[in-house]
Amino acid sequence: MENQEYMIEGRNAVIETLRSGRPVDRLYILDGCKDGPVSTVKREAGKRGVAVKYVTRQRLDQMSETGKHQGVIAFAAAWEYAEVEDILRRAQEKGEDPFLILLDGIEDPHNLGAIIRTANLAGAHGVIIPKNRAVGLTATVVKASAGALNYTPVARVTNLARTIEELKDRGIWFVCADMGGELMYRLNLKGPVGLVIGSEGEGVGRLVKEKCDMTATIPMKGDIDSLNASVAAGVLAYEILRQRTV
Amino acid sequence: MENQEYMIEGRNAVIETLRSGRPVDRLYILDGCKDGPVSTVKREAGKRGVAVKYVTRQRLDQMSETGKHQGVIAFAAAWEYAEVEDILRRAQEKGEDPFLILLDGIEDPHNLGAIIRTANLAGAHGVIIPKNRAVGLTATVVKASAGALNYTPVARVTNLARTIEELKDRGIWFVCADMGGELMYRLNLKGPVGLVIGSEGEGVGRLVKEKCDMTATIPMKGDIDSLNASVAAGVLAYEILRQRTV
Repeated sequence: MENQEYMIEGRNAVIETLRSGRPVDRLYILDGCKDGPVSTVKREAGKRGVAVKYVTRQRLDQMSETGKHQGVIAFAAAWEYAEVEDILRRAQEKGEDPFLILLDGIEDPHNLGAIIRTANLAGAHGVIIPKNRAVGLTATVVKASAGALNYTPVARVTNLARTIEELKDRGIWFVCADMGGELMYRLNLKGPVGLVIGSEGEGVGRLVKEKCDMTATIPMKGDIDSLNASVAAGVLAYEILRQRTV
Repeated sequence: MENQEYMIEGRNAVIETLRSGRPVDRLYILDGCKDGPVSTVKREAGKRGVAVKYVTRQRLDQMSETGKHQGVIAFAAAWEYAEVEDILRRAQEKGEDPFLILLDGIEDPHNLGAIIRTANLAGAHGVIIPKNRAVGLTATVVKASAGALNYTPVARVTNLARTIEELKDRGIWFVCADMGGELMYRLNLKGPVGLVIGSEGEGVGRLVKEKCDMTATIPMKGDIDSLNASVAAGVLAYEILRQRTV
């Protein structure tokens, strides 16, 4: 995926990409489309000297990977995965304790995109995903992240358990989201923390879970087993933010 | 959608449907499939006297609406929308203050399913959606709800603003999720409450927002504009649960 051109679809995703200053090579807009968000796309493109090509809906439909281009498709330089060091440096530059979100095998691109979006807004410094058995930064993920990928680095590692081990040596505590742990309100989630979220079907794997310092459990008042993975990540990330700020 | 047979796809959704006691008319399982979750499906079906038909992958693929049947498809009596009264009665039976989640125009079926799942686990008594310009209980929603629809009633109303008006007369307070309101931690969200979540693109509509008593804002530490709608619903629903229980 690295070192190739990347397609960004949808109005918000394209607006955020332009605003972030990320180089946009080409920009296609549905001919005759004049509504508010599309005008914003044109204005932001103008500010950055990005030329707009007006094309037919058929042409956009042909280019689209997600089928939901909303009349706007941009091509930008490839998304590069960050290094774990970049994420730590980001925390240091902000003078904050590192706050990482690690995903043990998220397969649904909508969930990954939503979690990157949550990481950005809950004040996490980056997201770490494994190379295998997990979705990477596909076009659907980029769109679902609603522009958050322009700001929030995503690192990809070969072995999540080993990465946790290395980061523990550097003073980061790891909390794994799972049933049967301590109610999240009762844990101390301040300080340098890595939040580990499991996959949609299987939860957090045993090897990864064994490396974690704590297990945080979201209260469950209902009848079914689990929240959607991106919702669970959101609830826990915001519990961390609450403990850090309120 | 009412008064017709309904297809339920995927292992968890079918297991939860069987466990809930909802009548299953027909159950199809991929021939030769013997892994753990499929064994659970067979066991639960056996307990309830539901006959299993073993079919080829091709046959399941033909039946599937979501393309993600995971080797299991069931047909049950149609999902009936509940009445708002059913939701209030559920709160009363539990001896709890009503906690409702109202969705002003959610269009993405994955978001609606995830929110029904959240409603179930965060202790909300039901979900209210509008009839127009919003997704209803489609097969994708049923699957994304991971069985929560068997327990958590969903009512569909013609005019969300009017429903809010009527429920206010019965002592329920309405809090609308939006930017520019009070930080959610600072609001008193105990007591009988309706949480109003806006659509993915537009947020909460003006007419609906005007009916609400408060606007709750999720803290935003990042660069982009908004969380995914189902994540925002999850963060706010769990803030309500926290205030009610901690």
